[in-house]
Amino acid sequence: MHPYLLLTSSLIAIARLLGQPALAQVSEEAPLTVGARTVPVPDTVSPRLRQLIARKYVNGGTPQTPEGWRALVATASSAEVARVPSLKAQFDVEVEPKLIAGVHCFIVTPRVIPARHRDRLLVHVHGGAYVLFPGVAATPEAIIMAGVSHTRVISIDYRMPPDFPYPAAMDDAMAVWKVVVTQQKPKNIAIFGTSTGGGMTLAMVQRAKEENLPLPGAIAPGTPWSDLTKTGDSYFVNESIDNILGAYEPFLAAAANLYANGRDLKDPHLSPVNGEFKGFPPTILTTGTRDLFLSNTVRVHRKLREANVIAELEVFEGQSHADYIIDATTPESKEAFEEIAKFFDTHLGR
Amino acid sequence: MHPYLLLTSSLIAIARLLGQPALAQVSEEAPLTVGARTVPVPDTVSPRLRQLIARKYVNGGTPQTPEGWRALVATASSAEVARVPSLKAQFDVEVEPKLIAGVHCFIVTPRVIPARHRDRLLVHVHGGAYVLFPGVAATPEAIIMAGVSHTRVISIDYRMPPDFPYPAAMDDAMAVWKVVVTQQKPKNIAIFGTSTGGGMTLAMVQRAKEENLPLPGAIAPGTPWSDLTKTGDSYFVNESIDNILGAYEPFLAAAANLYANGRDLKDPHLSPVNGEFKGFPPTILTTGTRDLFLSNTVRVHRKLREANVIAELEVFEGQSHADYIIDATTPESKEAFEEIAKFFDTHLGR
Repeated sequence: MHPYLLLTSSLIAIARLLGQPALAQVSEEAPLTVGARTVPVPDTVSPRLRQLIARKYVNGGTPQTPEGWRALVATASSAEVARVPSLKAQFDVEVEPKLIAGVHCFIVTPRVIPARHRDRLLVHVHGGAYVLFPGVAATPEAIIMAGVSHTRVISIDYRMPPDFPYPAAMDDAMAVWKVVVTQQKPKNIAIFGTSTGGGMTLAMVQRAKEENLPLPGAIAPGTPWSDLTKTGDSYFVNESIDNILGAYEPFLAAAANLYANGRDLKDPHLSPVNGEFKGFPPTILTTGTRDLFLSNTVRVHRKLREANVIAELEVFEGQSHADYIIDATTPESKEAFEEIAKFFDTHLGR
Repeated sequence: MHPYLLLTSSLIAIARLLGQPALAQVSEEAPLTVGARTVPVPDTVSPRLRQLIARKYVNGGTPQTPEGWRALVATASSAEVARVPSLKAQFDVEVEPKLIAGVHCFIVTPRVIPARHRDRLLVHVHGGAYVLFPGVAATPEAIIMAGVSHTRVISIDYRMPPDFPYPAAMDDAMAVWKVVVTQQKPKNIAIFGTSTGGGMTLAMVQRAKEENLPLPGAIAPGTPWSDLTKTGDSYFVNESIDNILGAYEPFLAAAANLYANGRDLKDPHLSPVNGEFKGFPPTILTTGTRDLFLSNTVRVHRKLREANVIAELEVFEGQSHADYIIDATTPESKEAFEEIAKFFDTHLGR
């Protein structure tokens, strides 16, 4: 420990002699001032991940109108859709659209499914700040997971704002959930997703509990957007450090309000960290040390552990938000998905 | 996900069309420049922990001479020793000195030990940058753990520089280990410690493997000083954010060199993150989002998981280095030690 410890310990000891609590002297509200500095690219990650970390944050703009959002969604989708052919080849899967309970979905089927995975199913809820990546753009993470875990995945192409704000996305996800649990033992089904998909994974379990629906056998919320307000230490500490999200304002704030459509952002149905975690299935959480959502992730982990839920936390060195799905060629991406696949192997029924 | 993703995805897509890797354009070595800013005290932790987080880092000085180090050690010790009476009362334990294999130790005995813990033993290696907290000053963490886990603890008062640099501390710890494994089933014994104690916990297991000694049944390295060089992203990202350690330079650098006494700091015996993790016992690691040693902790977690070891990671919101032992009255401190006690309950033999 550093001499700081001994000085504060001394302060406490002196204060005790004086019959006063030493800490009361310090204003709780005084923010920490951190000077300007440079942060090198870490040499404790793979060369490929170093390249991702070395990239500068790019502000893609924050639309002010429904038309602006639609244009942004279109641009974003075409870029994600462009990844799909090579991902399908890399992970050796087929992708087919399918309507389930009237909701657009994609069935992602690995070419090789071992016998022990044939009665299992993974349900995927994609990320994108509740507004990006409709259609085929939803599928990259589902493709990676299907390929790494050799398990069939249903990816839910839920409705989104500006046309369909809350609760459309959650209603679609729950409609699909109600169907799949009649087709497969719920204990054999996992739900997973990253960012918004991680938040929805948590909210789906909470809503299934509220509606007395069966729960999945395991879940994997990746760096979940568990708090739609700017609450949590890493929103501040990792601001301008995370080169994917950058900061809460203005984009995430705007997307949260677009989705909430006037609802209180603190509502547990929108910010599931404020909800109840008792009785959750085994959960594996993934994040990175530079992730703007590091606190969104570890706060959920602590709540799960306080509720005595089996909950594993994986924190990857140097990664910003969702780096593990943004480039599926890093060894760290492989490792992150393999951890989740192993976790499902351990905790899902057969 | 943020529009950044779509822009970089577009870049990649365009580069693919051109037959070039998009990322090659970006210099890997360019550091990130982060402007000055203020970081508020988070409201996502207990009121008492808020007070700890609100405190400013105090530079206690870095001695230049052996006499300077001895003076610092004396001041630091008296402050830690002053905590002991109230900790003994809070956790209802007795502390007795005892020589084991010629090494000064303390036996910490909870007044109440349930039957299922009577054949268990926890071995404690204290923190303090390999130079601070000899004697009774070593015992606070041992007292907390004994009280929370209701298990007997042996705390090793290992020799330290400036008089006894490496390998004295490790030789003492291993001498004690060789004795205790003859008195209790090794699978019923855990090793734990924080900071330097966490690094030594890891190094002890690696050395036990090298020397074909029995391994413990579980270990709990808390925010381990696993890399004595300034290697790992959080040494940079959490510099000036962590209000306990502050930064690597000058204090930690000086302490590392004082301990190493001319040896290469990268030697796995000094920086166990560089060692071998195959065959490790179940391990629980504890750290905080503001911890300067966040990377020291998650890098070890990943190496353990890559070696297929059962390894749990607990990351506490807003905590700097070792906040959970610096004030044993926060609910977060109780939670951290209870997690470790539960982990030992699950994984140690009886």
